[in-house]
Amino acid sequence: MSIDPKPAVVLLSGGLDSTTTLAIARAEGFEPLALTFAYGQRQKVELDAAQAVARAQSVSIHKVVTIDLGTFGGSALTADIPVPKDRPPASAAVPVTYVPARNTIFLAYALAWAEVTGAFDIFLGVNAVDYSGYPDCRPEFVAAFERLANLATAAATTGRGRFVIHAPLLALSKAEIIKRGVALGVDYGLTRSCYDPQGDLACGHCDACALRHAGFVAAGLVDPTRYVTPPKGQR
Amino acid sequence: MSIDPKPAVVLLSGGLDSTTTLAIARAEGFEPLALTFAYGQRQKVELDAAQAVARAQSVSIHKVVTIDLGTFGGSALTADIPVPKDRPPASAAVPVTYVPARNTIFLAYALAWAEVTGAFDIFLGVNAVDYSGYPDCRPEFVAAFERLANLATAAATTGRGRFVIHAPLLALSKAEIIKRGVALGVDYGLTRSCYDPQGDLACGHCDACALRHAGFVAAGLVDPTRYVTPPKGQR
Repeated sequence: MSIDPKPAVVLLSGGLDSTTTLAIARAEGFEPLALTFAYGQRQKVELDAAQAVARAQSVSIHKVVTIDLGTFGGSALTADIPVPKDRPPASAAVPVTYVPARNTIFLAYALAWAEVTGAFDIFLGVNAVDYSGYPDCRPEFVAAFERLANLATAAATTGRGRFVIHAPLLALSKAEIIKRGVALGVDYGLTRSCYDPQGDLACGHCDACALRHAGFVAAGLVDPTRYVTPPKGQR
Repeated sequence: MSIDPKPAVVLLSGGLDSTTTLAIARAEGFEPLALTFAYGQRQKVELDAAQAVARAQSVSIHKVVTIDLGTFGGSALTADIPVPKDRPPASAAVPVTYVPARNTIFLAYALAWAEVTGAFDIFLGVNAVDYSGYPDCRPEFVAAFERLANLATAAATTGRGRFVIHAPLLALSKAEIIKRGVALGVDYGLTRSCYDPQGDLACGHCDACALRHAGFVAAGLVDPTRYVTPPKGQR
């Protein structure tokens, strides 16, 4: 742990991946500034989870920014489109839970906050192994945003520093992510991943529940999630 | 004019440049979808100007999205920092009117709306000749965003099309922009450029007033702007 940790903006949804990413940022010696979006998503329990996670990990500044992606619609997470259930795991298509340009918008805000606070590091919990097939979760997207950040900002173009977009989960399986988090002391009971929760219960049948549950099973750990009906497969 | 014009998202601030860009998008055969941001800017008359311009150019859909860039601060346009007046024109530094990551955020939203509406063209009125020195107004920024857009979205990565970021003013002088707009029938009396307006009057001394007024003078045209005190130089 460095004596004078560098600030880093960490995108925190309250889900399993971003919560693990927050713990990794801290473990790598950064002082995390957590950024959460109330973006019109149907899974509002995410926001409570993000608050609980930020408290549990002693985040000194946690900003929740309200942005209305519902104004554009086009996704099952922000419009009146059903969340798909029990999808075949190897489906190649981008599912309707994809939110157009979501990670581009989130990273753009993170970049703004980073520049204002003097941070040059941004952490993002995207993962391209056990994921829903969203294009803005792939390494080439992350690399392209990093390149953009270093052309877009006064901080980078006047030589004060160089932005780095950290995506430490990119190449990890869900089981590896969970094992990493557990080793860092993450309490996954605080996190929420479900795309279509019923109150405080996860649906158990959307892509996010399926991936999450399979991850705990593969890691040989107990899944602390409370489901309406548990996901298929080993329990 | 094509019989079935393609939609294009046009970022419209209500200023001289974006208004000209809107007219160019139409002249190039696109059906413009105008996107304006209420982003906590001090120059709120911009928003009225954007509405007036959209009406004058018969825009069928004009969306005004409220986003709070003031939550981050860091700019004379969104925080309690004075707008610089009568700056030397050749000043190399990025001025305090720079809003961190503003065009990155605006383009990210434009990309979201484009993807939802099926548009693959986005118009942006940035200019790197007679401009305030903002890094996110340069051609390399525009090119980097276009590259990102084609990696970030389902529309592009599933082969439905390729996003193009149009910045038709990039290499034009302010006088050339004005002449182009006048030829297309733009009423510049509806537009507002000032960073620090007093009611409906432009201050006459910020970078935006200075560039705008010099552009009309160089174009040999009457500047329709009403100033508190007119900019220095020829009138």
